[in-house]
Amino acid sequence: MDAGVSADFELARWSRERLDRVEDALSRWVVADAPAGLGDAMRYAVLDGGKRLRPLLVIAAAEAVQGQPEAALRAACAVELIHAYSLVHDDMPCMDNDVLRRGKPTVHVKFGEATALLAGDALQALAFELLAPGEGEVPPSVQARLCHLLARAAGHAGMAGGQAIDLASVGLKLDEARLREMHRRKTGALLQGSVMMGAACGRCDARAERALAAYGDAVGVAFQVVDDILDVTADSATLGKTAGKDADQGKPTFVSILGLERSREHAQRLLDQACEALAASGLPDTRALQALARMVVNRDS
Amino acid sequence: MDAGVSADFELARWSRERLDRVEDALSRWVVADAPAGLGDAMRYAVLDGGKRLRPLLVIAAAEAVQGQPEAALRAACAVELIHAYSLVHDDMPCMDNDVLRRGKPTVHVKFGEATALLAGDALQALAFELLAPGEGEVPPSVQARLCHLLARAAGHAGMAGGQAIDLASVGLKLDEARLREMHRRKTGALLQGSVMMGAACGRCDARAERALAAYGDAVGVAFQVVDDILDVTADSATLGKTAGKDADQGKPTFVSILGLERSREHAQRLLDQACEALAASGLPDTRALQALARMVVNRDS
Repeated sequence: MDAGVSADFELARWSRERLDRVEDALSRWVVADAPAGLGDAMRYAVLDGGKRLRPLLVIAAAEAVQGQPEAALRAACAVELIHAYSLVHDDMPCMDNDVLRRGKPTVHVKFGEATALLAGDALQALAFELLAPGEGEVPPSVQARLCHLLARAAGHAGMAGGQAIDLASVGLKLDEARLREMHRRKTGALLQGSVMMGAACGRCDARAERALAAYGDAVGVAFQVVDDILDVTADSATLGKTAGKDADQGKPTFVSILGLERSREHAQRLLDQACEALAASGLPDTRALQALARMVVNRDS
Repeated sequence: MDAGVSADFELARWSRERLDRVEDALSRWVVADAPAGLGDAMRYAVLDGGKRLRPLLVIAAAEAVQGQPEAALRAACAVELIHAYSLVHDDMPCMDNDVLRRGKPTVHVKFGEATALLAGDALQALAFELLAPGEGEVPPSVQARLCHLLARAAGHAGMAGGQAIDLASVGLKLDEARLREMHRRKTGALLQGSVMMGAACGRCDARAERALAAYGDAVGVAFQVVDDILDVTADSATLGKTAGKDADQGKPTFVSILGLERSREHAQRLLDQACEALAASGLPDTRALQALARMVVNRDS
């Protein structure tokens, strides 16, 4: 057993119950009755796939601050819709031109490029609709804060900006600082955003907020370092997507800059930082967040 | 002089001042420092072009209900960003494959397809960021309501859904009811949404809200009817985009279903409906909204 994880906390059991709620909510909220096949493409992009890491981060952070469950569930699903739309657009021929995702044909292969483009666009809009439902139990101030955090994490200062740097970097030699900066936006912003959105569902003092931001940042970078490691060490079947692709495309990665061994050490160091941040948060129970950070670093797919 | 427009109201003068504010705000909020050329593409897509009909509808409706100016300006710009992103994606090769927009090369021609895709995505996120700025004078309840209205208008139940129907309709023979339904979503939802977002910036009783919804619906459909008329009667130079394209592509239009003369009558009838709705609103001053409806129907580009 790892030091730092209490014997009485089981991530698998904790996750199972939350994932059931998230899957159920996504299935209700991503409606199939959108016109002309759009709903089918949206559901295909979102349902029955993915590890749901971002929703779990939202919920774990929300539980750590005694957040409102309805707000947390909406935030969890909204973040996943943003993640799903980014994959749909990322896979398109004008971007990564990928035909396989989670072991299935990508959305544009299955539904055509135009529908994939629209489905991604509609998923982004739906994410904000979930956060600002116009009725229900979530206080307007929480709705507004969640919209703010998600828009920042998804937009030019976050995910979309990181993708633009990524596009511009193919074939270039980035140093480690630039590579971190790219991933901090491209993947990190939405992972950190998930944690901060969870925190926005409850009461969170400045100390806890700083700690959760540091945790989210470390987990975000660690996620990408491990992704780069898996891209060279795992096979396509395990990953559910084309392995070795980044290296083939001449994309800079942590492994190409640091090498495999130092990348692994780096991931472990980030995990330590994440756990230290939680320890300094003053929050009474951060076991789920801790276990999720461990899962991010120790996963094999 | 048209009956129903007061002699003391001049749309050109009213618009000029509001447009200055909108252009200035867009220029500040659509930042060029987004990474790797993304900001340039976003600004190119948004600035220095377009009639800004949607922002003017937002502001006119907000003024009719004594709405908060800061909220109205943010809503006006957010709606325009959604409109701009939809044009960027719409013009891409996998959609309409258009190379000319407002007399200039389209975004994907100028910046490449991948950057166009990302710029559109980032503009959508930025629209919600403007509505939920995380600070400033707009009450959180107004922020949340604006996010709700925009997400509904832009997403699968609105614009994106309408575009999906449009895609699926090429070469098909739609009846008038189906055609209206498509345009109600594709163009109408965002135009009506503009009016309702303006209304959400101030105090608006149920009677006024119903009236403004009816006004927005009529203006939305009228806009498309006139678009279809101009597609066959105007030339590309006047339109700033390729004329006659819908007919060439076998897209169903109001003109192809109703003929030119009945389409013109239909547009006038919709204008009457819009003005009647305003008259029944109980709002003290709806002259700007009235003049905008007239402009939509009587424009020549």
